[in-house]
Amino acid sequence: MTINIGLVGTGTVGGGCIDILQKHHDAFERHLGIDVQLARVCSLSPDEAEAHGVGHLFTSDYREIVNDPNIDIVIELIGGTTIAKGVVLEALQAGKNVVTANKALMATFGEEVMDAVKAVGTELAFGASVGGGIPIIGPLKHSLIANEIESVMGIVNGTTNYMLTRMAEDGMSYDEALAEAQAKGFAEANPSADVDGFDAAAKIAILASIAFNSRVTIDDVYTKGISSITTTDLAAADEMGYVVKLMAIAHRLDNGIDVRVHPTMIPKGHQMANVNGVFNAIYVVGDFVGETMFFGEGAGAGAAASAVMGDVLEVARHIDMGYKPLPACSCTDDLKILPIEDLSMKYYIRFSVSDKLGVLATMADTFARHNVSVFSMVQRGAVVDGVVDVIYVTHTARESDIREAVDEIKSMNDILHADPSIIRVEE
Amino acid sequence: MTINIGLVGTGTVGGGCIDILQKHHDAFERHLGIDVQLARVCSLSPDEAEAHGVGHLFTSDYREIVNDPNIDIVIELIGGTTIAKGVVLEALQAGKNVVTANKALMATFGEEVMDAVKAVGTELAFGASVGGGIPIIGPLKHSLIANEIESVMGIVNGTTNYMLTRMAEDGMSYDEALAEAQAKGFAEANPSADVDGFDAAAKIAILASIAFNSRVTIDDVYTKGISSITTTDLAAADEMGYVVKLMAIAHRLDNGIDVRVHPTMIPKGHQMANVNGVFNAIYVVGDFVGETMFFGEGAGAGAAASAVMGDVLEVARHIDMGYKPLPACSCTDDLKILPIEDLSMKYYIRFSVSDKLGVLATMADTFARHNVSVFSMVQRGAVVDGVVDVIYVTHTARESDIREAVDEIKSMNDILHADPSIIRVEE
Repeated sequence: MTINIGLVGTGTVGGGCIDILQKHHDAFERHLGIDVQLARVCSLSPDEAEAHGVGHLFTSDYREIVNDPNIDIVIELIGGTTIAKGVVLEALQAGKNVVTANKALMATFGEEVMDAVKAVGTELAFGASVGGGIPIIGPLKHSLIANEIESVMGIVNGTTNYMLTRMAEDGMSYDEALAEAQAKGFAEANPSADVDGFDAAAKIAILASIAFNSRVTIDDVYTKGISSITTTDLAAADEMGYVVKLMAIAHRLDNGIDVRVHPTMIPKGHQMANVNGVFNAIYVVGDFVGETMFFGEGAGAGAAASAVMGDVLEVARHIDMGYKPLPACSCTDDLKILPIEDLSMKYYIRFSVSDKLGVLATMADTFARHNVSVFSMVQRGAVVDGVVDVIYVTHTARESDIREAVDEIKSMNDILHADPSIIRVEE
Repeated sequence: MTINIGLVGTGTVGGGCIDILQKHHDAFERHLGIDVQLARVCSLSPDEAEAHGVGHLFTSDYREIVNDPNIDIVIELIGGTTIAKGVVLEALQAGKNVVTANKALMATFGEEVMDAVKAVGTELAFGASVGGGIPIIGPLKHSLIANEIESVMGIVNGTTNYMLTRMAEDGMSYDEALAEAQAKGFAEANPSADVDGFDAAAKIAILASIAFNSRVTIDDVYTKGISSITTTDLAAADEMGYVVKLMAIAHRLDNGIDVRVHPTMIPKGHQMANVNGVFNAIYVVGDFVGETMFFGEGAGAGAAASAVMGDVLEVARHIDMGYKPLPACSCTDDLKILPIEDLSMKYYIRFSVSDKLGVLATMADTFARHNVSVFSMVQRGAVVDGVVDVIYVTHTARESDIREAVDEIKSMNDILHADPSIIRVEE
């Protein structure tokens, strides 16, 4: 059987998909009995199509792809939630199967897209939207489905993981690490989606929706990026036996689910602590399987194209076998998303305080009045110009209590000399 | 739709499957729309069935399950290649779908089983045969299918990994580590399948068959266990920046495939080096995805049952949707399996030699005449009673050359005082 592909987007990942098809077309035919053909490509740049040797398939109008009756599967790789949304919805409405790597679209308009899939009865696959080439959506939807998933925790943004690795291992400042990441092409000129955590937030929204069978959108995710992380905090974490990672976290709790992205201290002995540089990893705990982890390259042409083309071949096999699609949406439950203020965890808090009598007693009293129990308190480094760093690690405390205590300390005269650094701790 | 399950084997993993069904029956119905019912259980022990509250479903004759027209899926969990083979083949011949965790059966009689599946047109799933609960067969058959897989390397036997971890971290001898593993229930009274590498060999045969689309049986796998590993070698490896793991390795080379199990030195910086205790991990390199790793519990009731029931639910969905099965066998290619003698790699070799003039020159000459280039040579520890340990690490050398050189040194008078320790090195 011949399956015709229409590719929308010929950038890094799209180019990787063309490379895979050119290199492995014959292997796919031999292994699967399917002749997978690239029938049409669309992008803003005919040069990109030319550069991959598919200039003769080029069109600048995606409607020529979504309305082409010969095309079986449309791949959407332009990203974003405006034109890409049109491509995906119009392709579905034209009866196409769709493969997309678009995390923003799925995390923002997932329900609308799923409703369109259901109405049309074709198949939508989005395995490349999280974790680059790491198989994670497939395992969550298939191999691990006999579990109640308790936790999903991911290092899902390679840019920030690269930056934090360079800061921790080589003592770079945040600005230096960002400049290097930009120079190497790991970070965009406007790095906000990465460093402010929005990319990770989209990904954990998708993972949580699948893991908990309950819709989570990007707007449901408490999100804090890494721009306030300093080398001082990374060094202090190291001394305490921890590393700091931008973690995307989703937990199932008794009264709902907890979904968030923020810099997180994790013990060096944890399997995730050794995930460095641009690598990604997703850690999943199920009630029967226990701990599992999925590791690999989270970005890059090859890894993401591997995931996209894995989806394409899966859909192609389904078409070949005459399968009607499994229900696209797995959100059969409706779990409450808990606000971060109501969560309880441990906290690292570094204050730059005046080195004078009574300050520590005042702070201890403030924590106590807000029900925050202190596990450890250490002065770090020397007193400079009457100011010294004091680091608190709390026992499990309620986020709202921590915020109130810290706000109260911040409001006091002559105690703090800089905004405190607060990093949440996962054991 | 109701799907009826017949379970053959009510030991650790079978018990875990019953637990999952009892705990999650309602969630499966809500999420998948399928009422999964345990209809019959068979084992040698009615007490095990009673203990799990399913004594009323018990039969001691598996034929009552495979011939029961109400049963849709038969789960085979008795292991081994005698009765289990009968259960699987008779169930298939009776038109049942089969889920099995039986690595020995699949690695030994995989072709015969696959032929039976094809002849009958039902579905066979064996995701639990490798890696316990770690999703690895699913990703290799689906998410990663757009890649040419270059390497699969696994720590796939928890017993030996536990023992090597205890020996390396706590200085236990092999015998002490084995005794502890047996006391904790990680090793059998007869530990041969684990410590001699046969369990790992079955697993890499299965993984290689899928990864390379070419049949590999357990008899094709060069297999060496851990019984000759000493704390001396583990300490020497540590000093050199390596750890020793029982690795199951499969590489695609230009002229065929290389499949083997043996103790292996890997650099401490490698992601697999931190996989300790009873955990398993499988590292996969694909031409587009790059490096990926899958980590988790390789054994235990919950993990293995998670994989078995994941397969059961997958098959149940296929029945519910009216899918005809995908081809069970993915061995469309016929790649040559290279004998280990023809492979080239690096070697660690520790000799206990006489501390006298001329010995090192003789050994150097022997290596050189056999085309073995030495990367480093160090004397380790003190001379005791005229004997001292000398450790060689070679550049990449041919296995047959290494064997000839070592045999020649062994045959010389008055040089060696013990059998040399040889550990292969993967970078």
